[in-house]
Amino acid sequence: MSAFLQQCRHLLGSDHVLETAQDMAPYLNDWRGRHTGRALAVLRPASVEQVAALVRACAEHAVPIVPQGGNTGLVLGSVPDNSGRAVVLSLGRLKRIRKIDVANRTMTVDAGCILAEIQQAAAAEGCLFPLSLASEGSCTIGGNLSSNAGGTAVLRYGNTRELCLGLEVVTPQGDIWDGLRGLRKDNTGYDLRDLYIGAEGTLGIITGAVLKLYPQPQASITALAAMESPEQALKLLKLMQDYCGASLTGFELMSRICLALVAQQFPALPQPFAAGHGHGQYVLLELSSNESEQHAVALLERAIGAALDGTIISDAVVATSVAQSQSLWQLREHIPLAQAKAGKNIKHDISLPVSRIPEFIATTAPLLEQAFPACQLVCFGHLGDGNLHFNVAPPEGVGHEAFLANQAAVNRLVHDSVQSFGGSISAEHGIGALKKDDLAHYKSPVELALMRSIKAALDPQGIMNPGKIL
Amino acid sequence: MSAFLQQCRHLLGSDHVLETAQDMAPYLNDWRGRHTGRALAVLRPASVEQVAALVRACAEHAVPIVPQGGNTGLVLGSVPDNSGRAVVLSLGRLKRIRKIDVANRTMTVDAGCILAEIQQAAAAEGCLFPLSLASEGSCTIGGNLSSNAGGTAVLRYGNTRELCLGLEVVTPQGDIWDGLRGLRKDNTGYDLRDLYIGAEGTLGIITGAVLKLYPQPQASITALAAMESPEQALKLLKLMQDYCGASLTGFELMSRICLALVAQQFPALPQPFAAGHGHGQYVLLELSSNESEQHAVALLERAIGAALDGTIISDAVVATSVAQSQSLWQLREHIPLAQAKAGKNIKHDISLPVSRIPEFIATTAPLLEQAFPACQLVCFGHLGDGNLHFNVAPPEGVGHEAFLANQAAVNRLVHDSVQSFGGSISAEHGIGALKKDDLAHYKSPVELALMRSIKAALDPQGIMNPGKIL
Repeated sequence: MSAFLQQCRHLLGSDHVLETAQDMAPYLNDWRGRHTGRALAVLRPASVEQVAALVRACAEHAVPIVPQGGNTGLVLGSVPDNSGRAVVLSLGRLKRIRKIDVANRTMTVDAGCILAEIQQAAAAEGCLFPLSLASEGSCTIGGNLSSNAGGTAVLRYGNTRELCLGLEVVTPQGDIWDGLRGLRKDNTGYDLRDLYIGAEGTLGIITGAVLKLYPQPQASITALAAMESPEQALKLLKLMQDYCGASLTGFELMSRICLALVAQQFPALPQPFAAGHGHGQYVLLELSSNESEQHAVALLERAIGAALDGTIISDAVVATSVAQSQSLWQLREHIPLAQAKAGKNIKHDISLPVSRIPEFIATTAPLLEQAFPACQLVCFGHLGDGNLHFNVAPPEGVGHEAFLANQAAVNRLVHDSVQSFGGSISAEHGIGALKKDDLAHYKSPVELALMRSIKAALDPQGIMNPGKIL
Repeated sequence: MSAFLQQCRHLLGSDHVLETAQDMAPYLNDWRGRHTGRALAVLRPASVEQVAALVRACAEHAVPIVPQGGNTGLVLGSVPDNSGRAVVLSLGRLKRIRKIDVANRTMTVDAGCILAEIQQAAAAEGCLFPLSLASEGSCTIGGNLSSNAGGTAVLRYGNTRELCLGLEVVTPQGDIWDGLRGLRKDNTGYDLRDLYIGAEGTLGIITGAVLKLYPQPQASITALAAMESPEQALKLLKLMQDYCGASLTGFELMSRICLALVAQQFPALPQPFAAGHGHGQYVLLELSSNESEQHAVALLERAIGAALDGTIISDAVVATSVAQSQSLWQLREHIPLAQAKAGKNIKHDISLPVSRIPEFIATTAPLLEQAFPACQLVCFGHLGDGNLHFNVAPPEGVGHEAFLANQAAVNRLVHDSVQSFGGSISAEHGIGALKKDDLAHYKSPVELALMRSIKAALDPQGIMNPGKIL
């Protein structure tokens, strides 16, 4: 291995081949602190050519490669295992915004660009790059693409997959595939782009991308609606989409227990409804207009009025200022923070056909209650995308750490139910090392065999992010 | 082969194994009449299980399979070659709409469903399935998916790829992959769905799909704007998108020569602008609103007013009735019909970064003029998607058949220019057998090698639609 490391130092300069435990630590620790891996070295190339040269060196010496962006993933996809055989290949120095083409509504970027910086660069040109998620200040677009990240704007703009027109990828053989096409239509052979997106670095290393930009809306306004049940939330979704079409840009479900938890952990945050009002569910709505704020307000009020008239919702608060909008969004964003403050939960990032969500909740909550009496279901998420964060907290008086002993059993119960409703055990976080065994359990043998064929065809040496996904 | 055909008759009943030249003829002729293939038989299964059993029989006897939907493709992708060794596997009897789930905004269909029937079934439930193209009365959704068809609604809703959430596929080994998931978010492994979409039946046979539905707009209105140049058309596109966002559902460019050709071949069609008015370019605009017709009209008039004020356009006609809207669309739809009436053209289905279209036209038209003096450029298309139908007709006085002798040279000139502008030689028609050599010429060796690896991994026997794409 010393010849290999020598080669790496020669390629990058020794400053960018990290080998001490201290230097490597940030690259080896999982974002949620559940795992610390080991590595031969952390490699920090500054160009796609350097990435390619490093991959060729790794292939020659059969050194496994763990590609890493912002290392904010939630499924142990971007940290190495404990063998110490792999290198971490950090894309953090590839951070150039290569080009913004407003007339084509595209931006070409290096994989290591931070998501928030991409959003800002788009905004500076009067454009919107709509991908938005909690870790946007740290995560990189390469990681977003590799994990096909979701977030809060999927309802209108789709997942990261839908926001990408082209890629540049270094293959496991160290070739550079230049697929940086900024085309809306291109039917020339197999869709390699979408194969690399969501592959979590197991088929190659994304080094650049062409992203879609959208016109910046003139105004976005927010409302919080209260209703009794998930059935009514679903009816509200249909009504809002029928009334507002693509102007509906956010639709987030939160159960009563979620807002109570936020009130308890963050008592300074304003709560729009009086305590003890007794609504079962809340929906945070966002409407955006390319026309004007007046247009957005009038449309939202008309739709909310119809929902009140139809007794779909029982109450609603419409934000009348940007500050009020932000404070409504803060309620939603503080749910995971409140959970973290309260103690560790058993988390699930699941998706279902939107139409089946009420029945799924009605079926699964009693099963949990029966198997784990008095456990607390903290259920919230992107209802418009069928994506629930279906988290299970311990009964009052039971310690969070102690309750984690039930993790495997709780996961199995929830994921079995998801499977029976035609859902997915990973909506937006991916598989990584964390859910690899679940994937093998729940996927059909035909699908697993197809995935293995593709992996073997593109990475026959098996050096790309081994132990992730498959 | 007689044992094989006996097996097919046993599986399907002899009525559905067509073997005479007369019975097979409709399945062997290319839609545009450029090629008639030969086949061992035409197989007409009625279920996915029958498809799977047939594929296993083909695999056992090494019989190549040409999957076929409505056989309306434009690149010789759905007809067999002249060897007579292959079977055509027609999906035409798999025509069940399996399920419409309005609350999930999805429809699950057999691959053999006709596109127009899918549109109608969606409309009957108050929903929109937006895919729309000239052959919609004959083409099947399986063919649309296999060729990732485009059409006139891509600007707002995307290509067929973007309208599909899940697939059912019979693999070249005769296994059934059930990927019929109706999920908006699902990050569990490699994106097999998008690999089969656009693969033109070379990796497996699509037998079913889950399609996305949208709220039916309350109103759509149309306008025709006149301007001097493609540069101004591009400025108009930006202005319209900034003003209207997702409400802009159509943006079709037509050069003066296109409308003149329609006027000449179809003199009964009303022409909205006086003859000889001298505008260089026209754009057909469509705006849709989920709110009301008044909203759509007001928004369109505001945007058109701004375009006139900014001297981006020099004139515009807004349709004030459904009949007027239809008559504007008829102008657009009659361009290919007028071309067909005038005689065969040398056609190109190309795409470019939207921003580069004016420069592409300004560069390529003189090159054509120089190489083929007095040839006529009939250029129209989906400007909002960067997709041009860049067709070349003979000089006046030169016969269309005679001019076709230049086909290879014209194609090379146009495609070389497309390549130099970062465009695609097949925007929405695919590759098939027609553009296979072009693909090999223009794609990078890295991309071709990746495609061949995938083909070899999934179809090692090479029985799926051989001679297409690769």
